[in-house]
Amino acid sequence: MLIDKFISEIESKRNCAVVGLDTQYEYVPDKMKKSDPIESIWEFNKRIIDAIYEIVAVVKIQIAMYEQYGVAGLDLFYRTSHYAKEKGMYVIADVKRGDISSTAVAYSKAFLTRPDIDFVTVNPYMGYDSIKPFIDDCVKYDKGIFILTKTSNPSSGDIQDLIADGRPIYEHVAIKVDQWGKDYVGERGYSFVGAVIGATYPEQAKKLRALMPNAYILVPGYGVQGATAQDAAAAFNRDGLGAIVNSSRGILLSYKKHPEIGLEDAIIQEVIRMRDDLNSAIRGDKK
Amino acid sequence: MLIDKFISEIESKRNCAVVGLDTQYEYVPDKMKKSDPIESIWEFNKRIIDAIYEIVAVVKIQIAMYEQYGVAGLDLFYRTSHYAKEKGMYVIADVKRGDISSTAVAYSKAFLTRPDIDFVTVNPYMGYDSIKPFIDDCVKYDKGIFILTKTSNPSSGDIQDLIADGRPIYEHVAIKVDQWGKDYVGERGYSFVGAVIGATYPEQAKKLRALMPNAYILVPGYGVQGATAQDAAAAFNRDGLGAIVNSSRGILLSYKKHPEIGLEDAIIQEVIRMRDDLNSAIRGDKK
Repeated sequence: MLIDKFISEIESKRNCAVVGLDTQYEYVPDKMKKSDPIESIWEFNKRIIDAIYEIVAVVKIQIAMYEQYGVAGLDLFYRTSHYAKEKGMYVIADVKRGDISSTAVAYSKAFLTRPDIDFVTVNPYMGYDSIKPFIDDCVKYDKGIFILTKTSNPSSGDIQDLIADGRPIYEHVAIKVDQWGKDYVGERGYSFVGAVIGATYPEQAKKLRALMPNAYILVPGYGVQGATAQDAAAAFNRDGLGAIVNSSRGILLSYKKHPEIGLEDAIIQEVIRMRDDLNSAIRGDKK
Repeated sequence: MLIDKFISEIESKRNCAVVGLDTQYEYVPDKMKKSDPIESIWEFNKRIIDAIYEIVAVVKIQIAMYEQYGVAGLDLFYRTSHYAKEKGMYVIADVKRGDISSTAVAYSKAFLTRPDIDFVTVNPYMGYDSIKPFIDDCVKYDKGIFILTKTSNPSSGDIQDLIADGRPIYEHVAIKVDQWGKDYVGERGYSFVGAVIGATYPEQAKKLRALMPNAYILVPGYGVQGATAQDAAAAFNRDGLGAIVNSSRGILLSYKKHPEIGLEDAIIQEVIRMRDDLNSAIRGDKK
């Protein structure tokens, strides 16, 4: 099952960090910028992937950054996912889709039927019938999903923190993630139905972790968004597993913090720093 | 302001029906099917638009149906929106996007900065900072949005019907739609911040209509999804305005119900039937 192989790969690399390829043209180093933003981002993405694939197990590609360039941007999104997959990486398509069932079938087809994409993120607002087509394709194509639960952004509480029956909405979502994923737990005790919980809300993450013990949790918000490794550690189980932690801008722009070294060295240095930062927080927190 | 011109166009055509171009290859009449699904759908979409543009003011294009064909599908999505706009129609991109603010900026750029697209649908689960970039672009480019409030699908209640502080979540969303749109009300009394309410939930729609009197409401669920014109009428105000009603499969597949007449005649007949059905329900309900 994908989720078991995924866990093995994280263990063998001793690295739960996810590199977020939310690549924007402005992020590309000046020396690499060509007149065509698409080709500039493509070269940058390839150099990032080449630098990290031996030490990082997972990339997350934020489709919005590609969609803003229209058709050529979507092509770049698929080229990037293909390149990362060729290098042996696991690929999360961060698409946050959600729609009525007949439409969700089409969205799932757009991503989960492709060999280069392993996971998608989905939005729970429309309920189970908007998620079910993705779960069906996870079974059919050996894939996984992460359902938005408590997101990392400042306004996430507008809807997610409303209290119903004594619990915030995000806990209701977590309970559903647990129910929806119960039948799909692999050998390592984790389901391919996972969740998204922002590292910016560590107290909430502790509670959510307990409510869905089998869910793998994708944790955004580390670094530029303000959360620490200690914050992110709240999403892990006592086995030191159960979560992956994304950093996008912190890694993509690391070359600006270290102008004295080359692009690849700056990226590798930042990824290793993040890996060690997370490993020590996870061990410290869960011992 | 776009929303005022939009209302004038609906009035001048006496038609609040939206034709939903959720076109799938299977919907294309056998005689029109080519080996390439993309070109088959393109020919079908053009013939639909040619048939309706003089009597219908608005099309809604469901991007999932295009994304499932990858890059060529996205190209078809933009070609279709361009063709409808050239014919003078208003175009809703049904994309249901929602993400953290820096990402929402990119999503908004993908759609609202394009001259061929007038409105997008967005998902409120992540709160105000995920919606604000779209509102900013609505101001800048004279566009509009529809925020998912109470959706038409059977499972919509999983999250939306949870009761917080004595009100279901969808009413909390409606109150936010009202607040977020208050500063953007045009001459006709309607804001460019609208809402989506399924015709399949007419009792809820009545309450929601009152909670956000200035919101234009996009109403899916009429026809194949099971709702009647009477159900859809609950989303309208006493001025006979304030809502538009989508039908997708009911119109796209009308040629199957009327094999004795041509494709265009079947579509026109169904659109006129729907228009009259809605007009009589709105007048009857609001007199």
